Amino acid sequence: MKNIKLIIEYDGTNYYGWQKQPDGNTVQQKIEKAISEVTGETIDLIGCSRTDSGVHATGYVANFYTNSTIPGEKFYIVINQKLPKDIVVIKSEEVDKEFHARFSSTGKMYCYSILNQPIRSPLNSRYYHHIYKPLNIDLMIEGSKYMIGEKDFKAFQNNGSEVNSTVRTINDIKIVKDENYIKIYVTGDGFLYNMVRIIAGTLIDVGVGYKKPEQVLDIIESKDRSKAGKTAPALGLKLVKVFY
Amino acid sequence: MKNIKLIIEYDGTNYYGWQKQPDGNTVQQKIEKAISEVTGETIDLIGCSRTDSGVHATGYVANFYTNSTIPGEKFYIVINQKLPKDIVVIKSEEVDKEFHARFSSTGKMYCYSILNQPIRSPLNSRYYHHIYKPLNIDLMIEGSKYMIGEKDFKAFQNNGSEVNSTVRTINDIKIVKDENYIKIYVTGDGFLYNMVRIIAGTLIDVGVGYKKPEQVLDIIESKDRSKAGKTAPALGLKLVKVFY
Repeated sequence: MKNIKLIIEYDGTNYYGWQKQPDGNTVQQKIEKAISEVTGETIDLIGCSRTDSGVHATGYVANFYTNSTIPGEKFYIVINQKLPKDIVVIKSEEVDKEFHARFSSTGKMYCYSILNQPIRSPLNSRYYHHIYKPLNIDLMIEGSKYMIGEKDFKAFQNNGSEVNSTVRTINDIKIVKDENYIKIYVTGDGFLYNMVRIIAGTLIDVGVGYKKPEQVLDIIESKDRSKAGKTAPALGLKLVKVFY
Repeated sequence: MKNIKLIIEYDGTNYYGWQKQPDGNTVQQKIEKAISEVTGETIDLIGCSRTDSGVHATGYVANFYTNSTIPGEKFYIVINQKLPKDIVVIKSEEVDKEFHARFSSTGKMYCYSILNQPIRSPLNSRYYHHIYKPLNIDLMIEGSKYMIGEKDFKAFQNNGSEVNSTVRTINDIKIVKDENYIKIYVTGDGFLYNMVRIIAGTLIDVGVGYKKPEQVLDIIESKDRSKAGKTAPALGLKLVKVFY
């Protein structure tokens, strides 16, 4: 029995997220089906996280156990032949039996992408959230500083999943601007339901001027979801990297 | 009667190109319908070129005549409210009565986009043609030099439209590489049917090593379509700019 680790890129536009669902068209189901077709086994694919409906990934990690004789580092080639156009396995390798895509993870990096210009852009509408009001990047960076560290992020969580604790550590937030494209990279040890999208929505409010940067501290301390910004749309979010 | 010039961006994925068709879902029809809804007039939109099915544009130019009292520079705002998500008017303005989007044009710039890496990428599959074999950019640039100038481009034309002459002038071809992304910018006074896509297909052959750069000269001189490269797929092509 081998344990195979996969790194996966997918366009989430047409999927109900990662996680298997009874009637659902999900990324997990597509990949499990592809691997089953290759190995003839029933595959139980372990994903690093449940990503929401419409969210994308360039570095999603999953693992599965198999008795197949296909070498680990060749697996991605045969799986890709069975996958739809909007999902691809970038890399595969055999890993330690103990490796678990979710529980072994020590952190993740997400990227939230914004197109900031007066007019919408059809050629960017699939992966960029369009904000027509000018965003002040310096204010956004200033506001993001208050989010760094181990904090109770209860105000940055939507209802929808049960957790024991709403304390999480954000290690880094990097905001970069290239012409009208703004990317917010958020790295942390774990994230609450919709947390990155609420962080993005809150920083957008700061960038537009609806909130002052220092208000981010009040929002965190309030532990009140209604104080934070809107949940920014799923299409702007990408899971970029998982750390182990 | 005013003459209004529009600059248009669209994602051509779901359209049968620009040009009106009896049962067709075309960009021209979508925009004519939007303008008609705004002005209450029957609109005959003049486009700068027929772009093929699946081709995109960031700087398509069109014009139309109207008796509407809406100021030229405000027109784009009201039209955009009626347009689908994959089409947008970037700018509108009143121009001279003589201006004709096609006949007044002195040239156009197209961009052909390639993703050059071993594995396909779902998040780039909409606008980049994937080439998995490594492309040698220097050879492509060398090959492109033979295409510059006034030449008979008969070998770079597919059957499908009648023309009096197959002589065209290419003013410039610029090939730029940024990590795995390669863009071929082609500027010329006019283009034959599928010409830019055949130029791209031929330069890809040169980049992969199937053809030597100097063979481009032979291909042009042969006036034989079968000597040139394949017609590269529509999805990689964008009309970037029209000159007047």
